[in-house]
Amino acid sequence: MDPSDSNSAAGGKTQNVSVPPVEGVAGGGTSYGWVDGGLRGTNLGAGVIDPTKVHSEDLLHVWSMPSTANVSQQEVPRPLEKVNLLAARNERESFQIALRPKVSWATSGIAGSVQIQCTDLCSSSGDRLVVGQSITLRRVVPILGVPDALVPIDPLSPQVTLQPGETAAVWVSLNVPCGQPPGLYEGEIFITAVKTELDSRTESLPKSEKYRLYRELRSCLDLTGPRDYSSPEEMVQRLTSASSALRRVLDNPALQDCQENNGFGDMMDEDVMNNVSVRLKLSLTVWDFTLPVTPSLPAVFGISETVIEDRFCLEHGTEGWYSALDHHFRWLLQYRISPFFCRWGDSMRILAYTCPWPADHPKANEYYSDPRLAAYAVPYAPILSCTDAAKNSLRREVEILKSKPHWSKAYFYLWDEPLNVEQYDMICNISNELRSYAPDVRILTTYYCGPSGSELAPSTFEAFVKVPNVLRPHTQIFCTSEWVLGTREDLVKDIIAELRPDLGEEWWTYVCMGPSDPQPNWHIGMRGTQHRAVMWRVWKEGGTGFLYWGTNCYEKAMIPSAEICFRRGLPPGDGVLFYPGEVFSSSHEPVASTRLERILSGMQDIEYLKLYSSRYGREEGLALMEKTGMYLGPDRYTLDHGPVDVMRGEVYRTCRS
Amino acid sequence: MDPSDSNSAAGGKTQNVSVPPVEGVAGGGTSYGWVDGGLRGTNLGAGVIDPTKVHSEDLLHVWSMPSTANVSQQEVPRPLEKVNLLAARNERESFQIALRPKVSWATSGIAGSVQIQCTDLCSSSGDRLVVGQSITLRRVVPILGVPDALVPIDPLSPQVTLQPGETAAVWVSLNVPCGQPPGLYEGEIFITAVKTELDSRTESLPKSEKYRLYRELRSCLDLTGPRDYSSPEEMVQRLTSASSALRRVLDNPALQDCQENNGFGDMMDEDVMNNVSVRLKLSLTVWDFTLPVTPSLPAVFGISETVIEDRFCLEHGTEGWYSALDHHFRWLLQYRISPFFCRWGDSMRILAYTCPWPADHPKANEYYSDPRLAAYAVPYAPILSCTDAAKNSLRREVEILKSKPHWSKAYFYLWDEPLNVEQYDMICNISNELRSYAPDVRILTTYYCGPSGSELAPSTFEAFVKVPNVLRPHTQIFCTSEWVLGTREDLVKDIIAELRPDLGEEWWTYVCMGPSDPQPNWHIGMRGTQHRAVMWRVWKEGGTGFLYWGTNCYEKAMIPSAEICFRRGLPPGDGVLFYPGEVFSSSHEPVASTRLERILSGMQDIEYLKLYSSRYGREEGLALMEKTGMYLGPDRYTLDHGPVDVMRGEVYRTCRS
Repeated sequence: MDPSDSNSAAGGKTQNVSVPPVEGVAGGGTSYGWVDGGLRGTNLGAGVIDPTKVHSEDLLHVWSMPSTANVSQQEVPRPLEKVNLLAARNERESFQIALRPKVSWATSGIAGSVQIQCTDLCSSSGDRLVVGQSITLRRVVPILGVPDALVPIDPLSPQVTLQPGETAAVWVSLNVPCGQPPGLYEGEIFITAVKTELDSRTESLPKSEKYRLYRELRSCLDLTGPRDYSSPEEMVQRLTSASSALRRVLDNPALQDCQENNGFGDMMDEDVMNNVSVRLKLSLTVWDFTLPVTPSLPAVFGISETVIEDRFCLEHGTEGWYSALDHHFRWLLQYRISPFFCRWGDSMRILAYTCPWPADHPKANEYYSDPRLAAYAVPYAPILSCTDAAKNSLRREVEILKSKPHWSKAYFYLWDEPLNVEQYDMICNISNELRSYAPDVRILTTYYCGPSGSELAPSTFEAFVKVPNVLRPHTQIFCTSEWVLGTREDLVKDIIAELRPDLGEEWWTYVCMGPSDPQPNWHIGMRGTQHRAVMWRVWKEGGTGFLYWGTNCYEKAMIPSAEICFRRGLPPGDGVLFYPGEVFSSSHEPVASTRLERILSGMQDIEYLKLYSSRYGREEGLALMEKTGMYLGPDRYTLDHGPVDVMRGEVYRTCRS
Repeated sequence: MDPSDSNSAAGGKTQNVSVPPVEGVAGGGTSYGWVDGGLRGTNLGAGVIDPTKVHSEDLLHVWSMPSTANVSQQEVPRPLEKVNLLAARNERESFQIALRPKVSWATSGIAGSVQIQCTDLCSSSGDRLVVGQSITLRRVVPILGVPDALVPIDPLSPQVTLQPGETAAVWVSLNVPCGQPPGLYEGEIFITAVKTELDSRTESLPKSEKYRLYRELRSCLDLTGPRDYSSPEEMVQRLTSASSALRRVLDNPALQDCQENNGFGDMMDEDVMNNVSVRLKLSLTVWDFTLPVTPSLPAVFGISETVIEDRFCLEHGTEGWYSALDHHFRWLLQYRISPFFCRWGDSMRILAYTCPWPADHPKANEYYSDPRLAAYAVPYAPILSCTDAAKNSLRREVEILKSKPHWSKAYFYLWDEPLNVEQYDMICNISNELRSYAPDVRILTTYYCGPSGSELAPSTFEAFVKVPNVLRPHTQIFCTSEWVLGTREDLVKDIIAELRPDLGEEWWTYVCMGPSDPQPNWHIGMRGTQHRAVMWRVWKEGGTGFLYWGTNCYEKAMIPSAEICFRRGLPPGDGVLFYPGEVFSSSHEPVASTRLERILSGMQDIEYLKLYSSRYGREEGLALMEKTGMYLGPDRYTLDHGPVDVMRGEVYRTCRS
């Protein structure tokens, strides 16, 4: 409580400051005029600002941010620099444009609207990446206050609204097609402050005026309308009255601007953009590596059919139901994800299936043969109702599928995290049944502990490690929670040591509620690199596949546009990687989360690391992760984006032909 | 790392939960369908929602919150209950309406728009509090992510925009005029989901259509227009062509709805509101106490003239400058605040003045005699330029003012926090000059420590307490920082013991950067009761006045609508109690912060406590604060609103006639 203490919270406002105030006579004691907002020298005057007459750089800050940044509403502006990106063919690379108003130029409660127009990206040899197809813009919308939902921006009206004192972000994705010629592609993004629709409302005719106009025109038509005119005098009279009425209509103040402007000037032309837009230069190096269409690492992700049925009011098995599932399947495929639909039974029984149609349906072959699908779940129908019909249908499914080339991608996922001997026995019984239909069937089982009620091993971790001994040959894909490992990467070798690759056994992993911060996971509020690092971890630990329980597991709702609530007891974002489009607009297209985009980026990173390792060996691949500082372990990975680009750049530099 | 640990972050998602899932077959393992959002039973269907056809309670949550609540975007809905308020005459009482979408009904990127219509409040004897005059609505806008700015809602279009997944708040203020008859006033607020302006855009005529219409009508006028028609045949021809043209115009799809609707239905009629609106019942007890027009405790608050000059591009002394200062003065008066304008010199010299006009100007008398003004600063002009002219003008000012009845409200504020003997000497010199003009002059000095370089006392606190010995008779208002006291209320008696009330000496206090959390202050991010408690603290400690250094001390900007930046080194919100209206809309009216409203509430609380103490004694007044749990000390005051209403209710119960 010593007031002269230099750490004191109060008093002596300027006393400890050595830099003198900018103005000898300042305006409030402290540090007035030290931060100037970059507006010195511009003179926008004291009236309402017309954004078409002022350079947009005087109205807003524009700067770029990497895709792993969570650009919050309080994000502080940085200098605008050219964006340089690297991408392989069949790769998506994204970055963000951050926008923050310096002033308000709208008059309707917002700071202003901004138009974002992107040119095609062109190479010197004339090849193109086309806006709208290969280049997409999405608005980053906060969920629980954290930037997460990526809502598509209408390409016909690419506008974003800025709020006073808030930073907004636009997510720009460049999708390089498989056949894109390598080269350096260059383009520009024009960011232009514009009048808001409400502010330019005066330019359209308001409803009340429209009604008035309509009535006047009707009465005018009554004047000119009747065909049997009694006399020339009457006709003169009618023509004169009609002329007066028309002049009255044309004198309506709402039509006055039509005289000056002939109806052109709606589109923003190049001159305007050159004169007033902020220009973000963008260059993309497309290199001669093509990401394999089939992901090297199968990542199977659940879609709750129950949630779809409830929210979109669809009855199981109806045409709408099939269409909704089909829509979700196709949409998720673009994320290098192999989706499975699921429905939970009691005791964590699970019905998991990738294709809603039976194996003999043409759609089934289309689904299962899709090269983008790395693995598919075959429904074990009797899991929910163990009737003879269900059993017969299952047998027929397997009979059909096991003869197909894609059968090697098939797996059964029967039970989520069995916990006791009784549940293990169930899995074994089903396995016996399935193996009688197809000896080479693959069963996937998720677990994070050994069965309770058995004396498998003296310690809990030992019991967990010994699970393969209990489930062999009834499980081929041993899928364990990353949570079990914690930060002890060294335990991986104990897990792998128990597996028999010669019998086709594989080790996959999953994340769900755990692990929690600071380890990689996909909860809202984690860092962007923490989201992306889930896949780096998988690659480093050497698992050969990955499972995630749910992508659309919001709380129950019976209306498509109902608020998205996360389920009780789960960390925010757990089990939710995309949102119903209806919540944000009239679109039915799902809205991806930034986390889903970072999953895709992580999946793509795996292909880079795999390419590098195929050339220089796995040890060198692991060394590359370490020496770039990108990923060293579950609690030691980069918090910033830089090392990610260094890793990718190094693969490009050493592996291009 | 024991997976069976019940505190574990992962695994066993449902294992420790005793309540069974709502559905036997759930959709995602955990807790699906436990939180239902209250939409069960309503059937909004799967298409776009028409808010005019659905009850608004199916579309959004509505509930009330007290004025001391910081309603964040994540605020969780509560049940809607009737709002019961108590207010004296000449008092403002506020509460908040929180709104959160259950679904999205707009299609343009927001969840939807809501119309908020309030009825007049009526008493059974026919008296009224009129909407727009006595009842105002303001939107609560976040500043640095914290709800703070109160942006007026246009009474002609009282709409609020809701974002998906975000809670919005509307600040409702009831201003009871001095002459309002006591009684129970009742009314309702109708909250109605509406189509957004963009969604109903189709109802107005778009610009392109307007231009087309204009061209067609012009050509039609060319047909009917010329006065000298050569023949009846030509006239028939012209009338026929005009009729066709008009029919073509009227057939324009954009005008089709005019046929069905005769232009009415723009206003929301009572039937609509009765059928689809959420109704919030509101009752206000106006009691027979009238808050004194002149605040019992003078609270003097600074307004930076430099900030006004810079931001509004006004030259000192011009007509626009006087008008801007006048506008600020009048606006702040409504908050029971006595404003002073200020400009800082070097070494914390300060020019402080309440009225920009000289004492012989008619405006000066208007300002100084205003009964709402409890104290006024007289400019000591020589502080900035010590010329003879300045000295003469000062002398003339004092000569004029000292003869006026309002002279008892006058004070000089010369120096902000003098720190050394040299600065103390300056104050003494000025005081000698001023006392030669008027022996009863009052000088206010702010300080938080004794002068350095003097051997006033052995300890720092002692030196602080002994300041009156040094400044007597050169200061009458000893204004000390609350930060010095910290949580040690007992030190107050040491300060007061040094003062000579017989010589007119008074103890005032101030807050600025400190004290910090958990003590009362006005920083953004503190609790609402913490803001309000600044004045509770003043009352309990027994100070007879209060000073605050700045109300508009944002960082420098040269454009009215420039982003509001807080100054470097100050806690957010320090020195900023209102915002330029231009940042939020085309209005020039300043935008109050919630903190400013809570200052007003605190000032009003003082009048309640004073009334109570005048009846039952100061000890009972202090006991009332304590027994209601409202305020016990700088780190022990209520965090919730309840005790505030209990205190006020107790004063009402015991003091009404």
